[in-house]
Order: sequence, then structure tokens, then C-alpha cells
Amino acid sequence: MAITRLPSAGFSITIRISVPADASSIGRVTTSVGEAGAVVTALDVVDSDPNCVIVDLTCDTADAGHADQVVAALRVLDGVNVRKVSDRTFLLHLGGKIEVSPKVGLRTRDELSRAYTPGVARVCQAIADNPADARRLTIKRNTVAVVSDGSAVLGLGNLGPAASLPVMEGKAALFKRFGGVDAWPVVLDTQDADEIVAIVKAIAPAYGGINLEDIAAPRCFEVEARLREALDIPVFHDDQHGTAICVLAALTNALRVVGKQLADVRVVVSGAGAAGTAIMKLLLRQGVGDIIAYDRQGALHRGQSGLNPAWQWLAEHTNRDGYTGDLAGALNGADVFIGVSAPNLLTGADIATMAKDAIVFALANPDPEVDPREARKHAAVVATGRSDQPNQINNVLAFPGVFRGMLDAHAEQFTEEMAIAAAQAIADVVGEEKINPTVIVPSVFDSRVAPAVAAAVRAAAQNPAPAPAADPGPADLPEIAANASATP
Amino acid sequence: MAITRLPSAGFSITIRISVPADASSIGRVTTSVGEAGAVVTALDVVDSDPNCVIVDLTCDTADAGHADQVVAALRVLDGVNVRKVSDRTFLLHLGGKIEVSPKVGLRTRDELSRAYTPGVARVCQAIADNPADARRLTIKRNTVAVVSDGSAVLGLGNLGPAASLPVMEGKAALFKRFGGVDAWPVVLDTQDADEIVAIVKAIAPAYGGINLEDIAAPRCFEVEARLREALDIPVFHDDQHGTAICVLAALTNALRVVGKQLADVRVVVSGAGAAGTAIMKLLLRQGVGDIIAYDRQGALHRGQSGLNPAWQWLAEHTNRDGYTGDLAGALNGADVFIGVSAPNLLTGADIATMAKDAIVFALANPDPEVDPREARKHAAVVATGRSDQPNQINNVLAFPGVFRGMLDAHAEQFTEEMAIAAAQAIADVVGEEKINPTVIVPSVFDSRVAPAVAAAVRAAAQNPAPAPAADPGPADLPEIAANASATP
Repeated sequence: MAITRLPSAGFSITIRISVPADASSIGRVTTSVGEAGAVVTALDVVDSDPNCVIVDLTCDTADAGHADQVVAALRVLDGVNVRKVSDRTFLLHLGGKIEVSPKVGLRTRDELSRAYTPGVARVCQAIADNPADARRLTIKRNTVAVVSDGSAVLGLGNLGPAASLPVMEGKAALFKRFGGVDAWPVVLDTQDADEIVAIVKAIAPAYGGINLEDIAAPRCFEVEARLREALDIPVFHDDQHGTAICVLAALTNALRVVGKQLADVRVVVSGAGAAGTAIMKLLLRQGVGDIIAYDRQGALHRGQSGLNPAWQWLAEHTNRDGYTGDLAGALNGADVFIGVSAPNLLTGADIATMAKDAIVFALANPDPEVDPREARKHAAVVATGRSDQPNQINNVLAFPGVFRGMLDAHAEQFTEEMAIAAAQAIADVVGEEKINPTVIVPSVFDSRVAPAVAAAVRAAAQNPAPAPAADPGPADLPEIAANASATP
Repeated sequence: MAITRLPSAGFSITIRISVPADASSIGRVTTSVGEAGAVVTALDVVDSDPNCVIVDLTCDTADAGHADQVVAALRVLDGVNVRKVSDRTFLLHLGGKIEVSPKVGLRTRDELSRAYTPGVARVCQAIADNPADARRLTIKRNTVAVVSDGSAVLGLGNLGPAASLPVMEGKAALFKRFGGVDAWPVVLDTQDADEIVAIVKAIAPAYGGINLEDIAAPRCFEVEARLREALDIPVFHDDQHGTAICVLAALTNALRVVGKQLADVRVVVSGAGAAGTAIMKLLLRQGVGDIIAYDRQGALHRGQSGLNPAWQWLAEHTNRDGYTGDLAGALNGADVFIGVSAPNLLTGADIATMAKDAIVFALANPDPEVDPREARKHAAVVATGRSDQPNQINNVLAFPGVFRGMLDAHAEQFTEEMAIAAAQAIADVVGEEKINPTVIVPSVFDSRVAPAVAAAVRAAAQNPAPAPAADPGPADLPEIAANASATP
């Protein structure tokens, strides 16, 4: 029942072939590509002579293996000669995806004297005299570090720092494109929490914010909590907080669609790692009815022993009725399923057991927890992380605007009030008149999103909520999780 | 005898004033500015009515105190009202001098799918499978870290990381402007050699080279030596090697002017810190006749005790005759003076005691060791670090081309062969037909310099010199200096 991988631009290839210059050959080629399951997107003539034509055929394929099959199908065609196969994704990555550009011309001696010696000496001295001026007179004003140890790269696992760099560069490009934020990849050749914390503290003077990325749980909780404590700039872990913001935004609109209230719904969450923990914390903070949290060993519940601090906290604050059965059983009568775990855990029949007007967010990438086409047969609203399905929940809706707002507010920390304000802003961009079961979040290309999120975050930064009560609540989770790495 | 500070663009201010709309008022203003010693460079009318005109008067001043005097002189003029004073150097620094720009459009879903998920996953996996691909598929191809601990910022001293950032940003801007190299400031909130080494090792996967900057001696020797040992990318300390390359280039042409050979000249070097040590090492490697090295405690000579390893090495390899007198006395009969130390140590009379056709490089910034106008009365060739005097010795002649060449060659280390090749390339750009006592180095804006340096460095990287002999020589200094921080 796994969802079929469809051809996509992420797996686009360009094949240079020579074919006989007759009426039917090009047609045989495109037919062959289509029969192999790929989608021809361009056909460019490179050269020709009276007998032969050389063309660059570009097509979307489903994955690398499929691309090989497409090329193999062309190789066996009579008279067709495959000259070269280029992978357009790799071509785009050559030399990296970001560059450093001077904002000053440096064309004349006067410009050089102001931007560098001797003029720069006065600017240095001014910052030494008044360190707060660094936010005004340096890149700290608009710059965020995108920090990873490469331990949880996309869904690929522990690939290490060099192999995580393409993701961090892409993130930096998205930061600028959508938020006007300068972001720089900091990939670390260490996976020791003490070292990561020490390094980020040391490099912090150049940055107005820290975005942690693709760091495995539970190390990510400890690193984040210790950095929040140590630094006077916001620390944000996108896999946690970015995902939580987007899920809360999507859930807000999904509940509008089905006419339910957050306080009344029972939620099942599959995956209690970085994303799942942050999602549950935010939902509890917003007063969700109940949550059952699932990870590989089953449902978290009171009275379990040997849990790490993050799970211990979840076990104490979720699963009101102490359910200990399997994931499919937990869905029985549940209003909402949120998956941030692994592919193909559930079937359409499992979804059918949920309450009326069920909401299913199956966010595992690239293959969701349940085939969204099956889920839609039984649920009122279905969302995934996929760009080829309706309701794509994509963190790019959140992080550019969140950091834009925090930088503009000179915020010293990221708060739950900001997260809630950002989620509300994303949800509201859709608008009453546009909302429906297939449109619960705005498009990632909707240019209203980042400014709306930034404004909401700025307002939350400037009007912080009252201090939390002494009673330990979800807001205290980062502190509780500070020693999370002590347990596996 | 100190050199007078002249008005310069580095201290340019814009004063917004309202003046009576009569025939003489503007004239009174500009006369007053001129009498105060500033140079009017622009006069822009902002607004006017029948009785009054508002103008922005821009002028170069000598320093911040002088700027205050100029404004004070305007305030006392009858009918003149000073509205606002803007410092153009500070205006240029607002928000920082560099930005991060995406090289991909990210305007469509297809571009997003290739630059980010899902396409990027294949690029990550390719690098995980073959780590060498990081030089092809990421910013590592063209990116250098500009690393400082803020311990020796320009001539200003230990200002710390935040206050050093404007220098590192300026350096990054120069790297791109002159060498097409992407450079990123890494300013560290630690001055512990172990921590600096650990951090630079950890962040190295994203970079194709490390440029150390404004790190105090002798810590800089230890940090450099340990990083060279640990990393497979070139480590270059601009204050050492950049300066040494430029001095060797300038000296090569100065010796051409006076018709002397390096092997025959006696050199006095004032300042045995980072720059002085690297200069002497390179001159010894090139077979200079003799050197006397001066630092605050006097001439380095054999038989001294308690020296740090770098100075110990210098004491053993310089000062053939064991001279122990003062700096002025050492100049007696010397062919070359190189100052990388402190302002106003020498007078014209001291220079007069040097050998015929003396060469004087007085490079202390902003005020040289000797007033260059006095030195020129007695020496054949005089150079400084100042942009308002002939023969400016400026590291921007070296570092952009050196890193351009090393990145293009995929060099794994910076070598003395590269330094010598770079110096030769800079010297040769001037050309036989242009060389004279006031033109021994090219202009920093000469667009031939960086490509020539890059080509020379690339060739040196691809044709390394034979392995050094077993006998310890200057090339071994980094290793000898590895424990330099153990002694003060």
C-alpha cells in the first residue's frame, strides 16, 4: 500500500542523444521515455546535419534507479546513441548554492578607506566601547547561523557534517529568499553535546540568532536548552519549533474546517523525537483535550521507568487514560492523527476507525505514515509533507518569518508566545473565504506569509506574556530536558 | 617629528546646516571648514525657502577630534544652524558590509525541489559516499573562513570578537572584490589556543581554506602550526604570510631600483611579532645577507635565555656579529630597514647613518616608525602602509590571489614555495619599464595583480619543490613554534 513515487523535478535528468534525421525517430524516443514512466519536460536541438540530429532531452524521473531505467530504454532503440546524461539537481549544486556578496563597492580609494583601514578602526573602537552597537554596525543585525552536526540529515540519518552541507546551504538560501535573512551554514565535525555548545557559544558574537538543524534527539534538547541559557540571542531548533508552529497552524485551520475545538479533541502522535515532542508541548500549552504519544516501544504512559527526561515529562502530561495498546488501536475514536515518524505504519482501514471528521497529518518524508489517497477516503482533512499532494506542511512557512521578526525586534530569546503568534499568523493568511479541506495552509510561495509571521513574532517579542506560574508546566520542558543526553 | 594626520575619506562627515539665503553665507561656511583644516568634497542643497537654504556639506577630516572641531567652528558662525552630523564611515557600516546571496532562484516549485527537498537528499548521499565530492558540490569549493579571536585588532589591541567583526567583514568583502573568493567572518569568543584549534577543526568541513587574522603573537604561531598539522585545507595567517609576501615583493623591486642583491644586504627589522617573524623567515629562506631583529627588549642575539621558541629560532639564525646595541646604532651602515612595530621610533638623522642607497619600509599603522618625508631625504626608496604616501605596502595585494590560486588548485596546504611565487608575481606586475623609487609595488586597484598571484600559486601548488633537507631550517619554524604559548 506504499505511495508510488511519482516523477518530480528533484530527479530531473537531461540526456544528450543523437538520432537519425527522419520523421519518426524523435517520436520513438519520447514514446520510449513515456513508456518508461518518466515525463518529458524539454527537448532542445543542440546540433544537426543532413542525416542526424543531436538533442538534449530533459525529463522528470521518480528516483535515481528510475533514471537509469529510462536511459537504458533509450540505449536499446535502433539508431539512437546516448552521448551524455546530466543530472540537473547535481548541476545546480556545483560550487554550492550560496555566495558572500559585499554590500559596499570597494571601487575607489575612498570606499576602501571607509570600509577597511583606516576608517574601520573607528567602528571597531565604537563597538569595543559599546558592545550593543554590534547589532547596528555589523552583520549581527541580520545574520543567523544554521548549525548542524549532521547526525539526523533529512530522513537519511547520521551522514556527518560535510554531507549535511547541501541541506544547510539550501536552508540559508530559503532564509534569504523568503525572509530577507542572511544565514550561514555552520556544519560541525563533532557530535559531542559539550563541544557543540562550546563552539556555538564561541561563534555567537557574529550572529543575531541560532537555528539548529538536523541534530538527533535527545542530544538536540540538551544542546538547545544549554544554548538558550548561555546566549543573549534566540536559539531555535527548526526540526522542533518550526515543525510545531506549522502543525499548530494547520491544525487550527483543520479544526475550523470540521468545526471542532482544540480542547475537545483527542490526538494520537506517532514519533516522540524532536518534532513530535515540540508539537505535543505546543498543543498541551494550547489546551488540547488529550494526546497519546507513540514511539518505537509503544505508547508513553505514567509509571514507565527508564525514560529519558523528555519522555518522562511527556508520559506524565499525556495519555490521560493510561492506554498501552498498539498504534492502530489508539486511533479508535481519535479526532486527530499526527505522524512524524516512519513510512507506511497505517492503512486506510486504520483511519476508518477514527472519529467522524477525522484529521490526518502524515508527515514522514518522503513516504508518509499512511498513503494520503487511502486516508482521504476516511478522513475529512489530510495533510502531508509532500509537494505533490494537497496541504503540504513545510517548515519554510515558519522559519524565515520567525527569524525576520526576532531580528527586527532585537529579541534575546525565542518564546512559546512567538510560536503561537506565528502559527496563528500562518493560519490566518489562508482566510475564511479560501479555507477548505484541501487548503488548510498557504502555499510556500505565498508572499504574504513571511511578513505576517514576522509582524506577529515582533509583536510577541515586544509584548511578552506574563511570567509563567511556579507550577511546572510544558514551558519548563527545555530545562527538564537539559540532562536528556545522560540517558540513551 | 610625528607625521601629521591629513584629512581622509576614512574620516569623512556630512553636516546638515541651514544658512541665510544671501550671497555670502555659503562662502563663509566653506571658508570656515577650510580654515579648520578639513577638505570640502560635496555641497548638496536639501531644501530652501526665500530666506534660508538647507545644505548637506560633506568634508574629509583628519580624525574624530578634528571632526568635532570642524563642527564647532560652524556652530559659532552667525546665522548658521547645525542640524545633524553624519559620519559617512558609520553610515556605510550600518547592518554590516557583506550579505549571503542564493545562487539559485527558488522562484518555482521545480527550483525548490532541486535546491532543497527532495532533490538535495541525493546530493547529501553522494557526499556521504564520496567525501571528496564536497569540494565540487558545496560552498567548500570557493569559501574561506576569516578567523579571529579579536586579540590584536589592527593597531588597536585586544578588543575582543564583536569589535573585530567590522575588520573581518571588510576582509571578506576584499576577498570577493579582488579574488572572487567567498569569505566568511568567524569571530571567536575565546582566546584559548586549545579552544581556537578545536573550533576551527570542527567548522572546517564547510571551508576550502582558513585565513587567520588579528590573533596576537605568540598564540598565532601555535594555532597556525597545530591547524596546519590537523587540517587538509590550507591555513594562512595574513598578518604573517600576507605581510611577508608583500614585503618580499616590495624588497625585490626596491633592490632592482638600487642595483643591490639580496645576498649582499644587511637588514634591520624592528618588531619580531607575527609579521616580523614571518618576514625574516622568508628573507632568510631567500638567502638574505644578514638580519638584526629588534623587539622591545633589544636586538635578538645568540646566548639569550628565556626566549619563546619563535624568538629562540630567530636569535640562532640572525645577527651574525652578535650586535647588542640600540636600534639607531644597528642602522649604521645597514642597507634595509623594515619596521612592523610602533610609531616614531626613528628620525631622519638615524636614516642618514644607513648605507648608500638605503631602503626604508616603515610599516607601522597608522603612524610609521619614521616620518616618510624625513626618511626620503636620506634613503633611496621609502615605503609605508599608508594610502596617502607613495609605495603603499598593503596585504590586499597578496591574500585574494593567494587563496584564489589555492582554491583552484584544491591545495591541501599553504607552502613557502607559494609565498615566494606570489611575491615574485606581485613584483613582476610593476614591470621593468614602470619601476622607479616611488613605484615598487602595483596599485591595490591594479586588476592584473590577483590573477597573476593566483596563477603563480596554482603553479607552485601543482609543482611542489623537492622535500626539504633533514637539517632544521627556516621551513621548520611552524613546528618549532608549536609550543610557543607555553612561554609568555
